[in-house]
Amino acid sequence: MTKNRTGNNQFLKAYNEAGILDLIRTRKALSRADLSKATGLSPTATGAIVSALMDKGYIHEIGTGESKGGRKPVLLELKPNSCYSVGLDVEIDCISYALTDISGRVVHEGTTALDVNTPEAVTSSAAKYINEMVEARSIRREHLLGIGISVPGMVDATTHKVLLAPNLGWEDVDLSSMLKDKLNLPAYIENEAMASAICENWVGACQGVSNFVCVNIRSGIGAGIFTGGKLYRGAGGSAGEVGHIVVDENGPRCGCGNYGCLEAIASTGRIVEKARRLVRQGVVSSLNDIADADSIQFHHVVAAARNGDETAKSLLNETARFLGIALSNLVNTLNPSKIVLGKDFVKYGDLVMDMLRSVIDCKALKRPAANVEISVSGIGEKSSTLGAAFIPLKILFGK
Amino acid sequence: MTKNRTGNNQFLKAYNEAGILDLIRTRKALSRADLSKATGLSPTATGAIVSALMDKGYIHEIGTGESKGGRKPVLLELKPNSCYSVGLDVEIDCISYALTDISGRVVHEGTTALDVNTPEAVTSSAAKYINEMVEARSIRREHLLGIGISVPGMVDATTHKVLLAPNLGWEDVDLSSMLKDKLNLPAYIENEAMASAICENWVGACQGVSNFVCVNIRSGIGAGIFTGGKLYRGAGGSAGEVGHIVVDENGPRCGCGNYGCLEAIASTGRIVEKARRLVRQGVVSSLNDIADADSIQFHHVVAAARNGDETAKSLLNETARFLGIALSNLVNTLNPSKIVLGKDFVKYGDLVMDMLRSVIDCKALKRPAANVEISVSGIGEKSSTLGAAFIPLKILFGK
Repeated sequence: MTKNRTGNNQFLKAYNEAGILDLIRTRKALSRADLSKATGLSPTATGAIVSALMDKGYIHEIGTGESKGGRKPVLLELKPNSCYSVGLDVEIDCISYALTDISGRVVHEGTTALDVNTPEAVTSSAAKYINEMVEARSIRREHLLGIGISVPGMVDATTHKVLLAPNLGWEDVDLSSMLKDKLNLPAYIENEAMASAICENWVGACQGVSNFVCVNIRSGIGAGIFTGGKLYRGAGGSAGEVGHIVVDENGPRCGCGNYGCLEAIASTGRIVEKARRLVRQGVVSSLNDIADADSIQFHHVVAAARNGDETAKSLLNETARFLGIALSNLVNTLNPSKIVLGKDFVKYGDLVMDMLRSVIDCKALKRPAANVEISVSGIGEKSSTLGAAFIPLKILFGK
Repeated sequence: MTKNRTGNNQFLKAYNEAGILDLIRTRKALSRADLSKATGLSPTATGAIVSALMDKGYIHEIGTGESKGGRKPVLLELKPNSCYSVGLDVEIDCISYALTDISGRVVHEGTTALDVNTPEAVTSSAAKYINEMVEARSIRREHLLGIGISVPGMVDATTHKVLLAPNLGWEDVDLSSMLKDKLNLPAYIENEAMASAICENWVGACQGVSNFVCVNIRSGIGAGIFTGGKLYRGAGGSAGEVGHIVVDENGPRCGCGNYGCLEAIASTGRIVEKARRLVRQGVVSSLNDIADADSIQFHHVVAAARNGDETAKSLLNETARFLGIALSNLVNTLNPSKIVLGKDFVKYGDLVMDMLRSVIDCKALKRPAANVEISVSGIGEKSSTLGAAFIPLKILFGK
């Protein structure tokens, strides 16, 4: 119990404001009477909150709705371009950006290459890009809610430092403070799979879903987990490291030092390595038509599989089998209602979904397996960039 | 947002009452001034709530504390025996009971054998026992908060029916309604591992711990998971089925139909089976001193290991290795701050803890592994019976 819980007016006011703002966001075009009915607040209190939100510029009136007797009700909606949020996703060799307005609509997106990916280089590059992006659109500084940053690494739940980002070679980096100091704007940092989960929950397949898991497959494999409607970070911030679930005790060595981790078998980098090895071994396959083994990229493997190449198909299905073992563990442990697979999985998910589903149906317990929906992310590769942009919005909407 | 959130007085009153009651429970002997300071409520509001709680009989004054100038403060405490809660744990061949008072102190515990374990037989037996227990102590019906029931099976998160309890042969059983009808008292049902987690959180090693896992090892293996300070049931109520994490793809067949599940290797039943098989195979061991293989029980295996028998020691350590693989998955996925191992594990945990810890340190990621405390439950076999009894208390205390 805190002072805030005891009926403190300021707290309740902010709470109710955020709640009404969120109702307008999720249900669109509502009248003051609709809002009063939905919240249980009196018409007077509702009117005062609506006025305050209009004064702040977050909402506006968009005309009148159908009358149920009496005056036609005036409908309210989020005011597009009233405020903005920036999301960025730090990758090994580039940074992806998204600028969204209050409704989550993407106003701009872009990517810049990184020659070096030290924290200083990332901060300088990001600050320059954000300043230019904002100036080009004549967006006033006070209309920027803040910056969300997605990183491929563990973020400490308390200090918000990047504890470890193996692919970037970072350890104990306070990137959000660095960017905050450079731009003088609130900055929030999140693990990339958790950012994707925020995205799926805000605008994607998991809106209104309380218990779900987003699994991102790329050079690494990680998950963002929601429990009870909230992002679950774990005690230290490293929850969701499902890439290190051991799926084959006799499997290949993983970057973490262990053997047979999911990531060491089913990451896209490992799939490419295996395809190259098969070509070198002279296994008959259309992959051999590519000049040499070292030139094979992930898109070649997917294209070959789509063209019916059995070697490429088996390769993808085999990784899906191991992915299925890891997901079965998640189904048994977490009993989620949805599992959404994203990033590179979007490129080949349709080819392996039958295999994945059959492994889960076979290996997970019957009831939680029957009740979990497994799907490919409809948002695709930008989910963590967008999810990062939604962090400042979530704060505005009291989420 | 609901009406309750808008400052509704009745709601806030109940909320603050529960909050003050919980402060008195957890911090013991507090004055009205202490409570006012801790909650931020005015002295007048605090006084009114304290009076209401005294009128209800939940708390009483226990004398005066140190003065910091002025009158000595009157200290308040939970009133022992002001109200009671019943917990029962349904097992294959018996029901265990606990009667606790408002403070969680156990007033009575007992066990009755079950000749048949149909839902009807369990309900009748439980109702008879509870009636006799309450009458013997002259406890008035209105002083009974309710009954918590722990079952070894999946409980539907919405309907509260027992979806499936394989060891009892139950499917879709509404046991809590049956008992409620028979006793005319509120009855709440929970999975046994989840009940143990409630127990560890209420009076055990996980008081105030937000993210932890309790793993129970007996004829089955299951976990109760807390995330963000709350019991996590998953979408359908079956979260925590860690006994079916596949730890050895080529392992023995499990009751679920799959192969190599943790439960099929490390449950106490399977340990006994393996010990009997070794004896039949004539493996040199002090277990051979027991008349015949079929007579070997779990306590024989543990006793032999304690006496230095290498076969028994290896057997327990081997199961701990597989347990370690499953727990490593949990550490990577959930990043808990504690894992507490209970039920039969209490009998041999000290013998295998080194093995368990070393597997987790080797197989889980370094940071979450270094930050997770692995311990044997200090509560022991009664954790789910007690946890069941705490369910009605949790409701009283607004938890």
